[in-house]
Amino acid sequence: MANYLSLSPDALRDEFSKTKRRYDALKSAGLSLDMSRGKPGAAQLDISDELTLMVNPKSSYKSKSGVDCRNYGGLDGLDEMKELFSSVLGMDKKNIICGGNSSLNMMFDTITQGMVSGFGDKPWLLQGKIKFLCPSPGYDRHFSICEHYGIEMITVKYNSDGPDMDEVEKLVKDPLVKGMWCVPKYSNPLGLTYSDEVVRRIAALKPAAKDFRIMWDNAYLIHDLYDETDKLLNIYDECKKCGNEDMVFIFTSTSKVTYPGAGVAVQAASDNNIALIKKRMAVQTIGPDKMNHLAHARMFDSSDKLYSHMQKHAAVMRPKFEACLRTFEAELENTGVASWTSPRGGYFISMTVLNGCAKRVGELCKEAGLVLTPAGATYPYGNDPDDSNLRIAPSFPTVEELEKAAEVLCVAVKYAALEKLLKQ
Amino acid sequence: MANYLSLSPDALRDEFSKTKRRYDALKSAGLSLDMSRGKPGAAQLDISDELTLMVNPKSSYKSKSGVDCRNYGGLDGLDEMKELFSSVLGMDKKNIICGGNSSLNMMFDTITQGMVSGFGDKPWLLQGKIKFLCPSPGYDRHFSICEHYGIEMITVKYNSDGPDMDEVEKLVKDPLVKGMWCVPKYSNPLGLTYSDEVVRRIAALKPAAKDFRIMWDNAYLIHDLYDETDKLLNIYDECKKCGNEDMVFIFTSTSKVTYPGAGVAVQAASDNNIALIKKRMAVQTIGPDKMNHLAHARMFDSSDKLYSHMQKHAAVMRPKFEACLRTFEAELENTGVASWTSPRGGYFISMTVLNGCAKRVGELCKEAGLVLTPAGATYPYGNDPDDSNLRIAPSFPTVEELEKAAEVLCVAVKYAALEKLLKQ
Repeated sequence: MANYLSLSPDALRDEFSKTKRRYDALKSAGLSLDMSRGKPGAAQLDISDELTLMVNPKSSYKSKSGVDCRNYGGLDGLDEMKELFSSVLGMDKKNIICGGNSSLNMMFDTITQGMVSGFGDKPWLLQGKIKFLCPSPGYDRHFSICEHYGIEMITVKYNSDGPDMDEVEKLVKDPLVKGMWCVPKYSNPLGLTYSDEVVRRIAALKPAAKDFRIMWDNAYLIHDLYDETDKLLNIYDECKKCGNEDMVFIFTSTSKVTYPGAGVAVQAASDNNIALIKKRMAVQTIGPDKMNHLAHARMFDSSDKLYSHMQKHAAVMRPKFEACLRTFEAELENTGVASWTSPRGGYFISMTVLNGCAKRVGELCKEAGLVLTPAGATYPYGNDPDDSNLRIAPSFPTVEELEKAAEVLCVAVKYAALEKLLKQ
Repeated sequence: MANYLSLSPDALRDEFSKTKRRYDALKSAGLSLDMSRGKPGAAQLDISDELTLMVNPKSSYKSKSGVDCRNYGGLDGLDEMKELFSSVLGMDKKNIICGGNSSLNMMFDTITQGMVSGFGDKPWLLQGKIKFLCPSPGYDRHFSICEHYGIEMITVKYNSDGPDMDEVEKLVKDPLVKGMWCVPKYSNPLGLTYSDEVVRRIAALKPAAKDFRIMWDNAYLIHDLYDETDKLLNIYDECKKCGNEDMVFIFTSTSKVTYPGAGVAVQAASDNNIALIKKRMAVQTIGPDKMNHLAHARMFDSSDKLYSHMQKHAAVMRPKFEACLRTFEAELENTGVASWTSPRGGYFISMTVLNGCAKRVGELCKEAGLVLTPAGATYPYGNDPDDSNLRIAPSFPTVEELEKAAEVLCVAVKYAALEKLLKQ
């Protein structure tokens, strides 16, 4: 394929005409496609349907230790669920809380606790204009929490092995910097995994603020696409080595293991932090839905069962990722107007288009019936300074739909790029 | 039975000896009984077990309007659940949010939102030492939320028809008074229901603080013991009549309808308040567990089914309340040392013993193997100024156990009273 950046004006005009014809044809096809959200498709939901059979009047309603899961009690979750995630996270059971259906909710509640009660210092709300570090592109819902509370977000760039740690180490010298968001494995949306060095440098941070907290959202820790998986160091072990175990809150969930809306969320932390969190939770709630914990614990009565369950997801997801990547290569390789990531897991592919073109690509796609994550959403305040990042979520459509969607996307990328180049 | 207050010293000593012998005999029986918590017993849990069959691989996972309940989405709950509670609460569907498994959590989140974001004024945390009115005896977990946040609690006395409204009307003139806790029907622990006049006076309050909020915890609104039920005015309608609809947050749940740990919690409020709550929730969560909503909505596909389900609970609970009341009458009537309520619903009986005796009764019961709610727990800061209130929770033990428990309690009440009278 020709590199658009070295085409003559005539050749550009010619290419634009061809692309526009193709785009118009696609647009007139009346498509209705959605690559906007990391939402599992129906085939993935079906994988977990035995979950609904795990607890019923013919089974017992009791956990292994004899807890009647229908009744009140059990603030930090069912013992066997804590055990399962103890194994998955490589942490002691006492450092794990299994909660409701939303790890986002646990993160929100944790930030809220910082705002209103604080973590060993004054409540954040009483400390002035506090700040959070936001490696970007990142997860929009993390950024929404900061925006909701008026926490100033500082964008930190990504290198190929994680956040730019030189920058992070500089920024944490500001005592108003109270935390950092991380999606360390198959990050949203880049799909990259933090290198051992990056994890170690994060664990060794010496922030000016004693109440600085890493929000370690390990959403995709077992969400591999291939047998050969990315390896992520255990942040908690690394923090402990540096005497920094109170600096990190770890989150994960079964949202993309069983049911997105009805999974089990998990929070892990140091003894001190768990004590603070439980102090709040003891006032906040009667405890999580133990019936759902029981169903999950019975379905995954060993971590091996959990891992083999994840292979079923991989079998559904892999062809979707590959359909996108195949189309991107066929359509965009060597054009010089787009690059993209090839993640080995997670839920997203990230594409970089020419500066100033991402929003235009979103518009063109929308007009042709394809919904993308709004351009900019992966940056603090929804503002991508280069207007060049696109998040592609291949999970929800079928492979057939994805092939069409990826084609629309590629044609729109070319369209926007040629438009830009013709104006120059 | 003799009135202890008019016995001669000799007769008192005689009565004490008899009571002590009885107490010692009970104590040596090695009992293990619990009347401390409003926790449904096993027989009540069984009533709802068909809930676990409502959603399974042979059923659809879709709601009536076609929502796949396994996936993400639906911030304010499944439509049919909102419809059900619209009918139960007598409020418009748009004013209702169905959430997770804990209405306490919804209350905590609401108070937290007041603290950190505020309700149309500055965040409560930035307004100095704010205060809440706490009609007492009341629900300890309401008071714990205030204590957790350092909100000053002002005890308001109960009359026989609800909180002392003369006092409430005076207190809300203080702009730092930001709210009031209410359990308006079969109140915890008194078991009384607010009269129409009290509801109307609450609805007509003109607090100095514009961000004053009534926390209307209607936990027992359909939890009647008898066909002839207490009637409670619709607070929202009354507030609207006074232009005060933004002043009230209403809560209820199915915790004591289906499963205590795995029910559906409900919050209702004005358009303005719902908008504020949803603004927070949109950032906080991916939405509630719709699978549990779906199961509940299928089990109660009409409010009539809900009401007839509640009659099954009444059939279990009524004999328990009556066993307690029978024993209290047989043991304590006319002794002059105890009075108690005879609620027509809810989960508690409240007993008033001689001033300075409630803690002692708790100790005596504990030594004899009966756990009561800690004396004082029904007052702000756990401090009953008269040390005279006992909360009795008859739901968890069987009728047979309750008969024994009530006997222990009565003997302990006499013991403590006679001890006190002998010292005078």
